[in-house]
Amino acid sequence: MPDNNSGWVCQASAPFPSLKDNRADADRMLDALKPILKSDRITCDLSLIKRFPEQLRQWSYQARCVCIKDNEKWDLIGVKETSDPRPFLGVAIDVGTTRMAIDLIELESGRVIAETVLDNPQIAIGPDILERIHFSGQNNGLKMLNQLVVNELNAAISGICEQAGFFREDVFLLAVAGNTAMTHLFLGLSPQWVIREPYIPAVNRPGISKASELGLFVNENARIFVFPNVGSYFGGDLISGILFSGMFEKEAISMLVDVGTNAEVALGNRDWLVACAGAAGPALEGGMSPIGMTAKPGVIDEITIDPETRQFHLRTIGHQPPIGICGSGMIDLAAQLFLSGMIDFRGKLIKSRSGGRLKEKDGMRRLVIVKSEESGTRAELAISQADLDSLIRSKAAMYTILETITRYVGISFADISKFYVAGAFGSLIRPRSAISIGMIPDLPDEKFEALGNSSLKGAALALTSRAAYDRIEGIRSRVTYLELNVNQEFMNRFSAAKFLPHTDPNLFPSVKRVH
Amino acid sequence: MPDNNSGWVCQASAPFPSLKDNRADADRMLDALKPILKSDRITCDLSLIKRFPEQLRQWSYQARCVCIKDNEKWDLIGVKETSDPRPFLGVAIDVGTTRMAIDLIELESGRVIAETVLDNPQIAIGPDILERIHFSGQNNGLKMLNQLVVNELNAAISGICEQAGFFREDVFLLAVAGNTAMTHLFLGLSPQWVIREPYIPAVNRPGISKASELGLFVNENARIFVFPNVGSYFGGDLISGILFSGMFEKEAISMLVDVGTNAEVALGNRDWLVACAGAAGPALEGGMSPIGMTAKPGVIDEITIDPETRQFHLRTIGHQPPIGICGSGMIDLAAQLFLSGMIDFRGKLIKSRSGGRLKEKDGMRRLVIVKSEESGTRAELAISQADLDSLIRSKAAMYTILETITRYVGISFADISKFYVAGAFGSLIRPRSAISIGMIPDLPDEKFEALGNSSLKGAALALTSRAAYDRIEGIRSRVTYLELNVNQEFMNRFSAAKFLPHTDPNLFPSVKRVH
Repeated sequence: MPDNNSGWVCQASAPFPSLKDNRADADRMLDALKPILKSDRITCDLSLIKRFPEQLRQWSYQARCVCIKDNEKWDLIGVKETSDPRPFLGVAIDVGTTRMAIDLIELESGRVIAETVLDNPQIAIGPDILERIHFSGQNNGLKMLNQLVVNELNAAISGICEQAGFFREDVFLLAVAGNTAMTHLFLGLSPQWVIREPYIPAVNRPGISKASELGLFVNENARIFVFPNVGSYFGGDLISGILFSGMFEKEAISMLVDVGTNAEVALGNRDWLVACAGAAGPALEGGMSPIGMTAKPGVIDEITIDPETRQFHLRTIGHQPPIGICGSGMIDLAAQLFLSGMIDFRGKLIKSRSGGRLKEKDGMRRLVIVKSEESGTRAELAISQADLDSLIRSKAAMYTILETITRYVGISFADISKFYVAGAFGSLIRPRSAISIGMIPDLPDEKFEALGNSSLKGAALALTSRAAYDRIEGIRSRVTYLELNVNQEFMNRFSAAKFLPHTDPNLFPSVKRVH
Repeated sequence: MPDNNSGWVCQASAPFPSLKDNRADADRMLDALKPILKSDRITCDLSLIKRFPEQLRQWSYQARCVCIKDNEKWDLIGVKETSDPRPFLGVAIDVGTTRMAIDLIELESGRVIAETVLDNPQIAIGPDILERIHFSGQNNGLKMLNQLVVNELNAAISGICEQAGFFREDVFLLAVAGNTAMTHLFLGLSPQWVIREPYIPAVNRPGISKASELGLFVNENARIFVFPNVGSYFGGDLISGILFSGMFEKEAISMLVDVGTNAEVALGNRDWLVACAGAAGPALEGGMSPIGMTAKPGVIDEITIDPETRQFHLRTIGHQPPIGICGSGMIDLAAQLFLSGMIDFRGKLIKSRSGGRLKEKDGMRRLVIVKSEESGTRAELAISQADLDSLIRSKAAMYTILETITRYVGISFADISKFYVAGAFGSLIRPRSAISIGMIPDLPDEKFEALGNSSLKGAALALTSRAAYDRIEGIRSRVTYLELNVNQEFMNRFSAAKFLPHTDPNLFPSVKRVH
């Protein structure tokens, strides 16, 4: 067991009752916790107190306790006999628009016992956030969207607990991070005003609730912490990512980029934090092209093209026959097409360099990536010039956002000591490919760090480290959200970024075309 | 409306949302409350936040709010439009062993709108605490005892709200005071250990709960405050009484006596508080004699005996034909019998002074108070020598307890500047009668003050005054509970007090017998 001061689980030992010390059972336990938690404000649910008289006498007034802090007030939410080998469990959840990720955690050791990823079932209502928000305004729509997510999470939590040999009643703490709209739908709050000027969420700091009040079937006393948001466009998933990256406590300046349909960016250090978000388009998630898809077995996630022979080398997830391409695969593909000279600096397919792969129909060029006989779908996998154009707009938007926020704080990319790439596919993206197409700045390799699902990992951190949890509100209140004004200056930068890698090649000295 | 700082209701006004101030709806309201409540730690149930986006826009971001403080953390538990004429209601409850009393209160004005008194339905299980505690240890016994009280309170709260023209959903705050065992049964906690050495309650400070968690049907967000106890024998009812008396903040020394089967006594001032409790016997509540009963129409609550003619003048509650006698009536009766010379200084009936009222059967003398033809029961009402003996033991026990605690702190009765008489029949007792039999010290009339049901009134005070509520834990933690050792010294005092008014008549200079 770690020391009594790092996480939410600790061991408390109260003196036996006597005529000289006739404090009540509950008060004995709470008093024993005071020096450990360094607080005088500790309370406890009656449902726990009900069992104290019998339990504490059986346990000789010694217990392992799980507690949580809520606005400087502590709640004791679970007790076990010290010799009970079963752990207190926690569940970290990232509620993404597309996918939801869950980690089952041993609260004492911080160990991740099991993990699972599942589709957000709200996709059935609408794949993008706007459709769901509109649906939530209809009769019963909000309730339906809420129940879809809650029911799916209940099933997943039950499943993951069972797999790991535990009961859902062993889960005492949960932490949830998501963007502002997803957080609202998870909490059953209307996200109507999130998308209407002046963009007002129902809540910024949902804080701690009882899990049962949110419809989650775990321990009856379990508490759930929902990450706060800064506003409508900077959600708890980003706060959680900043927490996990640790950038908020370093002296050096870091940049955190969550790559997705929305490009969400945080820049700063222990003294200041600036954030912005902007639409980068779905191309970066492989969402525009007919063959674009999210990561799963058979999806192409890495491509290299031999610059001499222009032969394609594909890697697919699980080494299955290819069925489509994900966001990181698209970035690789564009980078390799450009470096091998198959597309020009505007991203246009060059016929003379494409050999038999180029096809043209109704004035639209397409490049065959996988022939039908090699495809897992038995159909040819190809991308069109339109797909490439879309990708280039997305990468230009991303670069422009990074450039704008960096200039806003008066620094240059060279001042950034760490560049964190986060997001569901943040661990798959290869920085060199993204640099080759001018999507992210041309920094040395060692400055890049893939965080993976930093939203999920930040949630897990909040479940196991009191120190980390204590920093969350500080991060939230320190973040200055920069509203991106799509003004002439922004458009000028965007236009300059719509070339490969950029109109100004001096910005990307490391990018060298072979031909 | 009183100022924003005295009670739990206040008016909050948040600025309209704008692009420059895009805080979430919940955060706007909570931020607006911060300067009013002088706290940064304010939270709010999701069920309220759910309605905020629509309500606050309708109400122009102005609302009347009801909040409650729990361990220095505030909860916003109800909002109304400022123009809504319906009040936020509170319910104060005294859960006595025999009776339960309820006040329905307008939280803003502090006005008591309606009140009701009802029997504690647990009487059906057992009239005294011990029987109920034993029953609670049986299969399902605790649950049954708990439900009896909770169901009865639900019915009473519904009824009292309806009578006053309101709904039970208008009730947002409740405060409950009771002795330690009754509090445990109300909370569904086992009182098993309260009566076994070393007398450990399950909880001393139940604090704030959601009313719904205790099974009470009021507003879904309503909170309930349950008064803390000092130990097994000094309950929340006494803490509430001390709060209501104000003795804890005066420079002068006061004594508070709750007269009942248990004599509960507090002594002190703003610097110190000492308390004790001891069995005084049921005689003081009219519980021993076959004609003894609690106050209701037809019960004799005042008796005078003409010292010359020895004619009895009876007053009954509601001026109904007499059916029995209550505790204060018994004290009056004993005092008048003594002063008129019908009993001697040992409390024995004197045949020569009793005229035709004295009867004797099997060696036991009885004194007829009401002849059968004047009785509301058509049967003669009489008290026996045994009833009188029992009353004298009770009064002697009470006086001995008062003497012991006073000596313990090193003062004399003369140092007491205020003597509060509390308890269900504290408003009925006549101090001069109690002095005449030597039950309470012989102090000038102006020092006595009848508080009535101080437990109920203290609960009502906690619902309407933040300042009062804030003092409760301070009172609890300051009270030194004095364990009454029934040693030789105590027994000597008790023996000396078993005379009328006392072995040492100098202690009662004002008591003059006519004959």
